[in-house]
Amino acid sequence: MADFNSKVSVALGVRSYDILISTDLMKSCGDFILPFCKKEVICVITDNNVGNVYLNSLTLALKKVNISVNSLSLEPGEQTKSWTTLQKVVEWLIEQEVERDDCLIALGGGVIGDLVGFSASILRRGVGVIQMPTSLLAQVDSSVGGKTAINSEKGKNLVGTFFQPSMVLSDINVLKTLPRRQLLSGFSEVIKYGLIADKRFYFWLEENANHIISGEETVLGELVKKSCEIKAKIVQADEKESGKRALLNFGHTFGHALEALTNYSERLLHGEGVSIGCVLALKLSSSLGFCSAENVTRVIKFYKKMGMKTSIREILDFKPSIEQIIKVMHQDKKVKNGQLTFILATDIGCSFISHTVKNESVKNILFADIYD
Amino acid sequence: MADFNSKVSVALGVRSYDILISTDLMKSCGDFILPFCKKEVICVITDNNVGNVYLNSLTLALKKVNISVNSLSLEPGEQTKSWTTLQKVVEWLIEQEVERDDCLIALGGGVIGDLVGFSASILRRGVGVIQMPTSLLAQVDSSVGGKTAINSEKGKNLVGTFFQPSMVLSDINVLKTLPRRQLLSGFSEVIKYGLIADKRFYFWLEENANHIISGEETVLGELVKKSCEIKAKIVQADEKESGKRALLNFGHTFGHALEALTNYSERLLHGEGVSIGCVLALKLSSSLGFCSAENVTRVIKFYKKMGMKTSIREILDFKPSIEQIIKVMHQDKKVKNGQLTFILATDIGCSFISHTVKNESVKNILFADIYD
Repeated sequence: MADFNSKVSVALGVRSYDILISTDLMKSCGDFILPFCKKEVICVITDNNVGNVYLNSLTLALKKVNISVNSLSLEPGEQTKSWTTLQKVVEWLIEQEVERDDCLIALGGGVIGDLVGFSASILRRGVGVIQMPTSLLAQVDSSVGGKTAINSEKGKNLVGTFFQPSMVLSDINVLKTLPRRQLLSGFSEVIKYGLIADKRFYFWLEENANHIISGEETVLGELVKKSCEIKAKIVQADEKESGKRALLNFGHTFGHALEALTNYSERLLHGEGVSIGCVLALKLSSSLGFCSAENVTRVIKFYKKMGMKTSIREILDFKPSIEQIIKVMHQDKKVKNGQLTFILATDIGCSFISHTVKNESVKNILFADIYD
Repeated sequence: MADFNSKVSVALGVRSYDILISTDLMKSCGDFILPFCKKEVICVITDNNVGNVYLNSLTLALKKVNISVNSLSLEPGEQTKSWTTLQKVVEWLIEQEVERDDCLIALGGGVIGDLVGFSASILRRGVGVIQMPTSLLAQVDSSVGGKTAINSEKGKNLVGTFFQPSMVLSDINVLKTLPRRQLLSGFSEVIKYGLIADKRFYFWLEENANHIISGEETVLGELVKKSCEIKAKIVQADEKESGKRALLNFGHTFGHALEALTNYSERLLHGEGVSIGCVLALKLSSSLGFCSAENVTRVIKFYKKMGMKTSIREILDFKPSIEQIIKVMHQDKKVKNGQLTFILATDIGCSFISHTVKNESVKNILFADIYD
């Protein structure tokens, strides 16, 4: 099969950068990384799972261009996005004498990308970071756009910065060995792009469902590329989420609350919260007269075909009260003067930001999902 | 005496802001702060010393415009610029349900300004912060320009962000109650502005030495204003210290090392490290043929007249080896490829950045200062 090979540029003035999407990048990334190296050594931060599989290839690839690797491997999992680990990473980087002009590599999924991006943004008031996302979720979403974060006990991603990477290297091959549940979690964000901004892309995803499930290289590459293009366009229009960028939160107000209530555990992956959240957001849009019931049915059918979650009832051993969910939703970053922000849809591919949804309407949607 | 009343604008595009310099601002700041309040409550972070003296006035001033105050008071001192306090402040702000559009107030000296500025920059990826500096050092330097930080065990200000405040309110009156040693510490940065960029300002400072010592309101106001203007101009030219902004570090490579070696304690205030550092930087410049010996003598004479430190020998119970000082200097943020950065002077008011000073030249200057 022909190699997939593509580039998406994120145009943000002095903070512009490229996303390279290709097969076998893990083995051939040396020449891309070299221009960012001022010294003959580079710091790589990863987690134990990803490190076991990819750190050797990456080290060999860099050795070919005479760069040696200093690596730090962290515990995998959302718990790593903590104050404690942030301090550990930053102090380790200081020990390694990383300087302002140096560049780090974040090798891993969203947790590593968010944490290392945040660390890079505050070390000596900002050093470079190359994102090497190893999950679909990270390739299509968290590695692009410069949002970095750790979690607070009181909510996810409440502490962080806007800090663009120096480059993103997405190796399509890594997706092939990804557990199916992880792949579908990422696919949830891919479908979201179609839902909020691109009807044709959404239809293309429906048409290519089987190729995606079977992990076809060119289809996966195309899917990552198109997702990055949609996200790049939105981030370019509104880097710091003063307006339009909020569209990317479609389904996330619900999703984040569900993740918080399941303690960010394996019971509910981020993308699973997002697919349930997108369904709830579509139902909310429909109940307010914005979006047709046919569209809601169509999207639910697609999620089900892919084997993705579409209802709170599918979360194992989870029986929250509606009041609990509403309360946690109010701890979201997007709350303005106590009023929840929702992204609503008027059609597949058309979405808008609303600050006027009444709690009552949200409660009705939640009630129907949990009890009907 | 007529009230001093002035404004300096820092032009940084969407990050532009005003510095208001005036007498009695602590009592009359309500109308200035009101436009930044989306809610009827504002969070104020201060330290116990400053809080005891000014928190009541500030609370009353805000009460006049129907804004109530939520305050957090921290231990005074450099030790507060730590990971532990950063986490404490940010988590407290989350508990207070501070939202993205809200604004905090940092009421205090450089420690509070740096710590609260950093906290604001990472809370929900950035909330507003109004700086109300209560020391001369903070008014002329740390509150302006957007550098925020905490200290690492391995060095000062190694962790932080570039994050501009929403406004700076400098009340000249607070300088009158400042302990003399604190005032002189701040004055050290004022003289630095003259030395690096403005010969006329330096001469004006020499001429007004007595008025400054006696705390004359209009002279202090003029001095703060002129210092902010010089700093604003440099920050506007180079916000993130890619080039020219490094001039502001005149004397600081020496100064930071001396502070580190005295454990950031009361034995050596920041400004004391800076005045010693400026003398060493001038001597270094002179030894390399850039600056006349007369200039060095003139500046030392002025420092001495003001009662400021000019030699490492004046630091109590401090006998470092020259190797120790050199080693700590290499942990500075400004190190590039292991080569120290120095700001050198060709004349009073003329300075430049050098990456080529040899360790040997630095050692000679240190040896002469400590042993000759």
